[in-house]
Amino acid sequence: MAKLKDDERLDYLLSEEDMRIIQSPTIFAFSLDAVLLSKFAYVPIKRGNILDLCTGNGVIPLLLSRRSHAKITGVEIQDRLYDMAMRNMELNKLEEQIQIIKGDLRDMPERLGHGKYDVITCNPPYFKTATKEGRNLNDYQAIARHEIYGDLEDVIRSCSKLVRPGGKVALVHRPGRLVDLITYFRKYRIEPKRIQFVYPKFGREANTLLIEGARDGNADIKILPPLYVYNQTGQYTNALQKILYGNNQA
Amino acid sequence: MAKLKDDERLDYLLSEEDMRIIQSPTIFAFSLDAVLLSKFAYVPIKRGNILDLCTGNGVIPLLLSRRSHAKITGVEIQDRLYDMAMRNMELNKLEEQIQIIKGDLRDMPERLGHGKYDVITCNPPYFKTATKEGRNLNDYQAIARHEIYGDLEDVIRSCSKLVRPGGKVALVHRPGRLVDLITYFRKYRIEPKRIQFVYPKFGREANTLLIEGARDGNADIKILPPLYVYNQTGQYTNALQKILYGNNQA
Repeated sequence: MAKLKDDERLDYLLSEEDMRIIQSPTIFAFSLDAVLLSKFAYVPIKRGNILDLCTGNGVIPLLLSRRSHAKITGVEIQDRLYDMAMRNMELNKLEEQIQIIKGDLRDMPERLGHGKYDVITCNPPYFKTATKEGRNLNDYQAIARHEIYGDLEDVIRSCSKLVRPGGKVALVHRPGRLVDLITYFRKYRIEPKRIQFVYPKFGREANTLLIEGARDGNADIKILPPLYVYNQTGQYTNALQKILYGNNQA
Repeated sequence: MAKLKDDERLDYLLSEEDMRIIQSPTIFAFSLDAVLLSKFAYVPIKRGNILDLCTGNGVIPLLLSRRSHAKITGVEIQDRLYDMAMRNMELNKLEEQIQIIKGDLRDMPERLGHGKYDVITCNPPYFKTATKEGRNLNDYQAIARHEIYGDLEDVIRSCSKLVRPGGKVALVHRPGRLVDLITYFRKYRIEPKRIQFVYPKFGREANTLLIEGARDGNADIKILPPLYVYNQTGQYTNALQKILYGNNQA
């Protein structure tokens, strides 16, 4: 059985009935965005190396392990979250496939090597600096949500160094950063290839964006069909239910 | 009455019941994209200066004149299309509000002055070089659809010089050029502020993109709700009917 610390709880990973995840309302709990990125990102099915930066409690490696037999490495800078991620891998008996590393993503190219990964995923902090919201958060939450240890350019620069030529980099972010994302992707030679916008419901502006690029890829981007989270009656749409709960439930 | 040349015909401008437009199946006929851009672009209502580059037969100035009392200038490089645009302004008695200029958009900053326009619109050629499709077109069509007289960077560079600080630049293009559009917008200090993707129907990838930027604007972009052209039964959606035929028809 997993050892739970402080206010941690054991949650279901939705579509994965036999997986559990340790999280905490005050320290880190995974978001819909992490689930969306885990479904959006291309992954090699049989072999290869996948890296997840800003891994938090390891939710993305856990979900990716259901889509791929590749080796997965998660990187987390915060001690407390690294510890949680490590216990999540033990809890799900995935220590063989998934390795969790504690450290700063900016140091990873030197530590892990250049051009080593087939796929890199990242659900980075969304907010530029400590806003009013940021000041009301505890340190764990502030670091996970604000660009305190490195900004978006740092993330993309590290991805560019870590991914192999032709390899893929997939991020989730706010649509307000689309222009920055595209600018930094091009600057660091990750050509954007697929974008999907997520809309809270029909007729509203997008509030989430999924983007995938290929290192040294040619310029040719596809804008996928929109994904709506809620339907007009306030329920999850069928498309979202399928992502959250899988095909076997409606 | 308008004098029609060769295979020209007199068409309705859809939502504008009292407007007519001269066009030709072999030389130039306006597209849905021009109509979408005319509705998407911000325009000042009472006064100001609007510029439409690659104006063709003048369809965008005609449509914008119904939304704005500003002075509108259309620029067209092809003799035959310039002539058609001129006759379209006479036909609709809009010579006072709309001026048509013959020339190369790359020469316009020098000819018309820097920073003179509040709004610039452009429905540029979509295709990079003469493809197989291009070789099967006559010269009129090839020039309107292919980057023969200047490419996307030329368009955006000219827009950047012609628009006033804080003024708006709105373009329609293919989603495959999103990355180029954003890269050139930023390079020439037009910060992208609004994007709308147009999807042929539900569940399909976007096939058209509308983008508006502000000269020297701050970084903050909105992704508008998707626009679908056809519904599941192959009819225009209500949203598209409203754009095409106005509010008084369903």
